[in-house]
Amino acid sequence: MKIGLIGAGKMGLGLAHNMIRHGHEVVVLTRTASRVTALREEGLNATMETKAFLEKLDTPKILWMMVPAGDAVDDTVDLLLPYLKKGDIIIDGGNSHFEDSISRAAFLASREINYLDVGTSGGMKGALEGACLMVGGPREAYLSLEPLFKDLAVEGGCGYFGRAGAGHYVKMVHNGIEYAMMQAISEGFDILKKSEYGFDLEKIAQVYDHGSIIEGFLMGITARSLRSPEAVEALMPVVSSSGEGLWTVEEALRLKVPVETIALSLFKRYSTQSDGFGAKLLSMMRYEFGGHEARKED
Amino acid sequence: MKIGLIGAGKMGLGLAHNMIRHGHEVVVLTRTASRVTALREEGLNATMETKAFLEKLDTPKILWMMVPAGDAVDDTVDLLLPYLKKGDIIIDGGNSHFEDSISRAAFLASREINYLDVGTSGGMKGALEGACLMVGGPREAYLSLEPLFKDLAVEGGCGYFGRAGAGHYVKMVHNGIEYAMMQAISEGFDILKKSEYGFDLEKIAQVYDHGSIIEGFLMGITARSLRSPEAVEALMPVVSSSGEGLWTVEEALRLKVPVETIALSLFKRYSTQSDGFGAKLLSMMRYEFGGHEARKED
Amino acid sequence: MKIGLIGAGKMGLGLAHNMIRHGHEVVVLTRTASRVTALREEGLNATMETKAFLEKLDTPKILWMMVPAGDAVDDTVDLLLPYLKKGDIIIDGGNSHFEDSISRAAFLASREINYLDVGTSGGMKGALEGACLMVGGPREAYLSLEPLFKDLAVEGGCGYFGRAGAGHYVKMVHNGIEYAMMQAISEGFDILKKSEYGFDLEKIAQVYDHGSIIEGFLMGITARSLRSPEAVEALMPVVSSSGEGLWTVEEALRLKVPVETIALSLFKRYSTQSDGFGAKLLSMMRYEFGGHEARKED
Amino acid sequence: MKIGLIGAGKMGLGLAHNMIRHGHEVVVLTRTASRVTALREEGLNATMETKAFLEKLDTPKILWMMVPAGDAVDDTVDLLLPYLKKGDIIIDGGNSHFEDSISRAAFLASREINYLDVGTSGGMKGALEGACLMVGGPREAYLSLEPLFKDLAVEGGCGYFGRAGAGHYVKMVHNGIEYAMMQAISEGFDILKKSEYGFDLEKIAQVYDHGSIIEGFLMGITARSLRSPEAVEALMPVVSSSGEGLWTVEEALRLKVPVETIALSLFKRYSTQSDGFGAKLLSMMRYEFGGHEARKED
Repeated sequence: MKIGLIGAGKMGLGLAHNMIRHGHEVVVLTRTASRVTALREEGLNATMETKAFLEKLDTPKILWMMVPAGDAVDDTVDLLLPYLKKGDIIIDGGNSHFEDSISRAAFLASREINYLDVGTSGGMKGALEGACLMVGGPREAYLSLEPLFKDLAVEGGCGYFGRAGAGHYVKMVHNGIEYAMMQAISEGFDILKKSEYGFDLEKIAQVYDHGSIIEGFLMGITARSLRSPEAVEALMPVVSSSGEGLWTVEEALRLKVPVETIALSLFKRYSTQSDGFGAKLLSMMRYEFGGHEARKED
Repeated sequence: MKIGLIGAGKMGLGLAHNMIRHGHEVVVLTRTASRVTALREEGLNATMETKAFLEKLDTPKILWMMVPAGDAVDDTVDLLLPYLKKGDIIIDGGNSHFEDSISRAAFLASREINYLDVGTSGGMKGALEGACLMVGGPREAYLSLEPLFKDLAVEGGCGYFGRAGAGHYVKMVHNGIEYAMMQAISEGFDILKKSEYGFDLEKIAQVYDHGSIIEGFLMGITARSLRSPEAVEALMPVVSSSGEGLWTVEEALRLKVPVETIALSLFKRYSTQSDGFGAKLLSMMRYEFGGHEARKED
Repeated sequence: MKIGLIGAGKMGLGLAHNMIRHGHEVVVLTRTASRVTALREEGLNATMETKAFLEKLDTPKILWMMVPAGDAVDDTVDLLLPYLKKGDIIIDGGNSHFEDSISRAAFLASREINYLDVGTSGGMKGALEGACLMVGGPREAYLSLEPLFKDLAVEGGCGYFGRAGAGHYVKMVHNGIEYAMMQAISEGFDILKKSEYGFDLEKIAQVYDHGSIIEGFLMGITARSLRSPEAVEALMPVVSSSGEGLWTVEEALRLKVPVETIALSLFKRYSTQSDGFGAKLLSMMRYEFGGHEARKED
Repeated sequence: MKIGLIGAGKMGLGLAHNMIRHGHEVVVLTRTASRVTALREEGLNATMETKAFLEKLDTPKILWMMVPAGDAVDDTVDLLLPYLKKGDIIIDGGNSHFEDSISRAAFLASREINYLDVGTSGGMKGALEGACLMVGGPREAYLSLEPLFKDLAVEGGCGYFGRAGAGHYVKMVHNGIEYAMMQAISEGFDILKKSEYGFDLEKIAQVYDHGSIIEGFLMGITARSLRSPEAVEALMPVVSSSGEGLWTVEEALRLKVPVETIALSLFKRYSTQSDGFGAKLLSMMRYEFGGHEARKED
């Protein structure tokens, strides 16, 4: 197939090469001149001109957005819209909120344009070598592109889950689970590190990742992350969070589902970003009633 | 009554003055010469000589220990033991582990010496003006001292809860609840501080403490702690923990009682004391699979 | 003052008697004929006619709504609006979401009608005998009614916290803290109940409530709740939740404030209302990989 | 090699067949006559006579215990001890507490008998087809048996981690992580189930298990567990726990490592086993102060 790709960041670039390896044609739209050059040097067909970009595509047009969630998605849709015709397909392969995907799909459906929301997992390596794709949107549009999705995904790693938003919903919950699994691993290895045994943490992660009940992609990542304990120790103890863990907790609250470990994993990240006011207040309270020492910042 | 007090720290000193105000006689044993002088200047009868200290007491001797939990308690018992006789009463008014109190009581019971474990709450002000006393040990020994305990406690704030260890057990759970209540307050005020309303936090704590469902001793402490927001902000965001919160969680684990908020309050404190290895590992994992930025320590 | 009260439920009725005791006049609007009779038998001036109700009030009108959060508030405002004039004051004394209060206040401000959002705490007894009132809205409107609020509140239990929504915001966080404090108490008493000491739980709560660090309104409620352990045991282990705990967590998520104990207290309640699917899935997983017994429902 | 196996339960039996498939000889000791017959029908060399059992082994004897943690391990050691000689090797392949393994190893070392503690993961299928083995104890004893361990484990799934107890320690933390990972999955699928999308949960688990970041052994188990949603729904919402999750939390408390998700996963299981007293007390408290409905058990 011929695919128009908007957004050639870490994930988008991997997908582009993955598509080409499977015999698809890819045209990349980017906004920066230097980026065009870089992409061409990688062997990709890249342009800065929206109109030229769209004219290179077949009918119906297949447009794959791989841009940050939020305004960038709306901006991209706005940019493309004037050139689109009935039957064209826009794919949002990013981490959009499923409710935004529902809105966008409804808006585009009113113009008979298909909108597929595709959750993409597997990291940068997955994008390049075989990802996990979770799709929502009009079933016919999905079926028409199923061969493409199956090419990009590992065997068994592509699923259609229902009407608009379903793909991003399933991906959102995926990330919620991921937050808590990562937190669980980090807690376990914190114990192992503090233990008097003086363990080789990388080796433990490698063994855990071969034949144990907790083996899997994340344990492999853990082993790789622990190759150099010094490099880990040199990092700031601050963990960022994008939107999906938060959205999972919000959705759980809406549905009254208790999600203790997912919520705590999110709060744990927030704690690393916090100004510590809560802890300072606790320290002052202990001083006020019990005379316990409350140290001042140096 | 005539009471021999061992340990005139923040809490012990308050209790001594409280006893005297109620017409009791107090003799204080201390190990430091300078301390003797200081105590005498406060109008207390103090000595460094164990034998002289004990000779000043009536029969049966009433010995109130107010020393840190752990070895100091055993050392004190060892120091006193050679001089004790059948019927004497030792009181442990500190924060000992209830299982230690059970052992000590059994050991002393074998010599017909009474051992009362007394959990003391109310902070420094409570020790001085009216505390909350939770007592365990031989009932007869408790009854013989009930007038003293009632003098020291606020009206209604003295209870006998059963055999050896009961007093410290009830106090231990008190502290477990206290940990989680303090954490709850700290979370709530962290929200209020971050809110765009620009609230007057001290005023909120004061109003919460008058007529609301969350009014109580801790809310009063909160108001006092927030008199100077600058002083709070100047503190290190590090919260210490003595043993009782930990012991409450351990006891809950033994009994298979889910204690989510108490355990989390304890972990929250541990987090403030942590080297951040868990967070650093998370940050490295995010970098490894997703290329997410992991900042190095400056 | 002369106050028009809409909503004479548990809380509203208490406030009405509280107002009268302080020399204010109260007219109650209700929609049920039988309720009119009942209220009149209680000595209250009650009517079913909106117009008649409003005509009994002075200028500016003081209208105190004590109705459930949500549509009932909007319905009440809609009902009153045609009769209101510049300078009249509507008070929402219920548990509305602070964002709804902001919207309502803005809408009414555009008609020069004052809207005060008043968080009310202290339970039924507080409403009757002395509550805690947290007020937001136009400062002048607040000041004009301050004597009334001070009459209804306990000494020190009335505060003005800022522009529209501030009162309900402060009350929302109050309830978030309350959730976690209640959960902390419930965890502690669950330990005490399971302990081999065979404790008298009511007595412990009473002693905790006199002079200890965890004394306060909720500990008094705990003691009362434990008067009859049999009555407690006879209850369903299901705990309801109104909106404020949820809103507190949502606001914390918005502000990236970690609220571990508040969120867990909410999830704990959700767990008691859950269909148990999560636990069932865990049980099946343990069976699948380890052959662990998974019991079927009887 | 020739291995004497004590304990032919679910895991032991799998290991026995795994050993035989790799060309080792296995003699099984069991205490039940009917079990001897059953094992022989499976082609295993089984006996009830300890002496005969031990005489069938080579020098040094290799004895692999696969019995429940606790007294059964001590009983087995006591049973074998009179027949053991310097240089013999006992392996504890069960889920013993690492501190027990340290004690047992020290006791046996004093008699020059080697004791290896081997954490075994991978479930029943892993035992049979390729497990994950985490070994602690005397290094020479480990090295002498390394070929056997490598035969039983999947490629890369065997590791020696240090002195006595290290194997069971690493396995304990493995289970702690497993608890929280399982809980994370259960929370995510609880959301997916409650969602209005009406998802096919098995299909989601299958897609998650192919190429996503949360793919792994547990996700495969999740997919299998969801083959029949009816079978899941028919289960009791009660989840058992063996010791290792608990021990992980206890060890974390000792080391002051915050383990929020692991602890909560354990408490979540305890909650499913609870009598609900905590929730009942909460319900009564809400009734006492706010008049909120508290339903009685039917």
